[in-house]
Amino acid sequence: MIRIAIAGYGNLGRGTELAVQKNPDMKLVAVFSRRDPKTVKTLDPTVPVYPLADAAKHKDEVDVLIICGGSATDLPEMTPALARDFNVIDSFDTHANISAHFANVDAAAKENGHIAMISVGWDPGMFSIARLYGMSVLPDGADYTFWGRGVSQGHSDAIRRIPGVLDARQYTVPVPQALEKVRAGEQPTLSTREKHTRECYVVAEEGADKAAIETAIKTMPNYFADYDTTVNFISMEELRAHHMGIPHGGTVIRSGKTGADGENTHVIEYKLTLDSNPEFTASVIAAFARAASRMHARGVTGCKTVFDVAPIDLAPIDPAEARAHLL
Amino acid sequence: MIRIAIAGYGNLGRGTELAVQKNPDMKLVAVFSRRDPKTVKTLDPTVPVYPLADAAKHKDEVDVLIICGGSATDLPEMTPALARDFNVIDSFDTHANISAHFANVDAAAKENGHIAMISVGWDPGMFSIARLYGMSVLPDGADYTFWGRGVSQGHSDAIRRIPGVLDARQYTVPVPQALEKVRAGEQPTLSTREKHTRECYVVAEEGADKAAIETAIKTMPNYFADYDTTVNFISMEELRAHHMGIPHGGTVIRSGKTGADGENTHVIEYKLTLDSNPEFTASVIAAFARAASRMHARGVTGCKTVFDVAPIDLAPIDPAEARAHLL
Repeated sequence: MIRIAIAGYGNLGRGTELAVQKNPDMKLVAVFSRRDPKTVKTLDPTVPVYPLADAAKHKDEVDVLIICGGSATDLPEMTPALARDFNVIDSFDTHANISAHFANVDAAAKENGHIAMISVGWDPGMFSIARLYGMSVLPDGADYTFWGRGVSQGHSDAIRRIPGVLDARQYTVPVPQALEKVRAGEQPTLSTREKHTRECYVVAEEGADKAAIETAIKTMPNYFADYDTTVNFISMEELRAHHMGIPHGGTVIRSGKTGADGENTHVIEYKLTLDSNPEFTASVIAAFARAASRMHARGVTGCKTVFDVAPIDLAPIDPAEARAHLL
Repeated sequence: MIRIAIAGYGNLGRGTELAVQKNPDMKLVAVFSRRDPKTVKTLDPTVPVYPLADAAKHKDEVDVLIICGGSATDLPEMTPALARDFNVIDSFDTHANISAHFANVDAAAKENGHIAMISVGWDPGMFSIARLYGMSVLPDGADYTFWGRGVSQGHSDAIRRIPGVLDARQYTVPVPQALEKVRAGEQPTLSTREKHTRECYVVAEEGADKAAIETAIKTMPNYFADYDTTVNFISMEELRAHHMGIPHGGTVIRSGKTGADGENTHVIEYKLTLDSNPEFTASVIAAFARAASRMHARGVTGCKTVFDVAPIDLAPIDPAEARAHLL
């Protein structure tokens, strides 16, 4: 049995508890939280909840600690700190800062003989793997990542910060014409605006200036200004009835040429359609926790990413069975 | 530079030469053939062609030997034999015999300190990887493999053996309704007939009994009897004008559930659309030749499959660059 612990029990932590339950070779042995442990309600009430500050006291009870914190402020601190006492996995997803995070985590993990896998999930994660296989197999080509249709938490939060907004959901939507061109192997050059549109569902306060809210959204730099954005004002009831899910997904496409004159086109598409973003992310993390446990048992230490994990180390079945039935 | 040699120079061997040319860190140093070397015309005329029987004389000139033979009779003999003198890769694709082939090759490779990767290509190969990642990430689920639309050489050959047939092409085609159900996450149980149809284009001898040929095709056990098959008689000119390509592809779909009551459905799809089956297969093999060379340099020996290769070992870029740009 692989003994799993979770640090941080929000949407992702809860998804991780569910994912561990789906894997008969894993057992959730502890949850660590910054909240008062009495207020943390795990799905399985027999799982002990401890203060995060006491985590190190339980290090010998845990094979892999899954850190379910935010990338902006939690993980840059938590992952290197916890890698001193545990084998850890995080889902750090600030793409621009991955190299710096890797260096910090690598030092802490190596010094203490642990393995630490960062940026595990679907993007970064499964999408990164698809990009790497794609460029390796078709070196003369181009790759494209489309996200959606799905809820972007960051963009939804940005709308909620506008005065007069009670609640909001933002869906990122790939532009069908752009997807079609890429799937046809055309290798187009696409601007930000040509790849995705943004659909917003906004609940405004009574008497709020809706025109001003719409302008504030559509002109918001980085988040919306570079996109074709539509804003729909809806009631709180509509939001609760139709927009409470956290679906997401997207597609990574590698389009490449072979032949003496590049006369043959090949298109590789890796597509995810997810009802629950945090539950799928947690499912990916659980599989990589298995790999982390196996790799650490073989003496591997330091920071690793999904690129460093041979697929067989993720598998719930043994290598001979995988060769016989999946190869 | 990774020094590559090719054993067997047919469609796959020629595709491998093209694939090696696309990878600036690889160089084709030799072709070994059972034919008279003078009759083998490589794309690059400066590449030396030697009799296959003399291959061992050149073992110190080669880092990885790519064996481009057939799975029925060539590879079961050639791969274990050549693994004594070389690091090798093959594309053995008789799924039912992979375990036996693995055992033979493993013994030969280990005894001689070589690495031998078998069953590299797209199915087995990239599709196998997709199946393994899928079951690891979504353990509560089902997987589906659809092939096509593409030319099946085995089925085309089977038609050509019928008396009165001059030439033929058989396309394997996924049934759109089945694909739709699977993509929608329904996890249907599908019979052979419900998954694929078979489209045949046949050139008959003048005066041949076309009705008899059609019956012979449609009732052929294993190949056609379990499928809805359509037979189209065409002229040799039409065949040459429209059916000379070797396109193929297909899709691997993993559909799985998460949530406390399995209330969330997730669908992972890995799809290939290939203009040239042998050139894409060869492109996959070239990437795994890079991995074989790197793994052997680290001391790895014995038989390996695509499951044993960490994605980073395939990459034409270094790990720090991959983390910075692809993760």
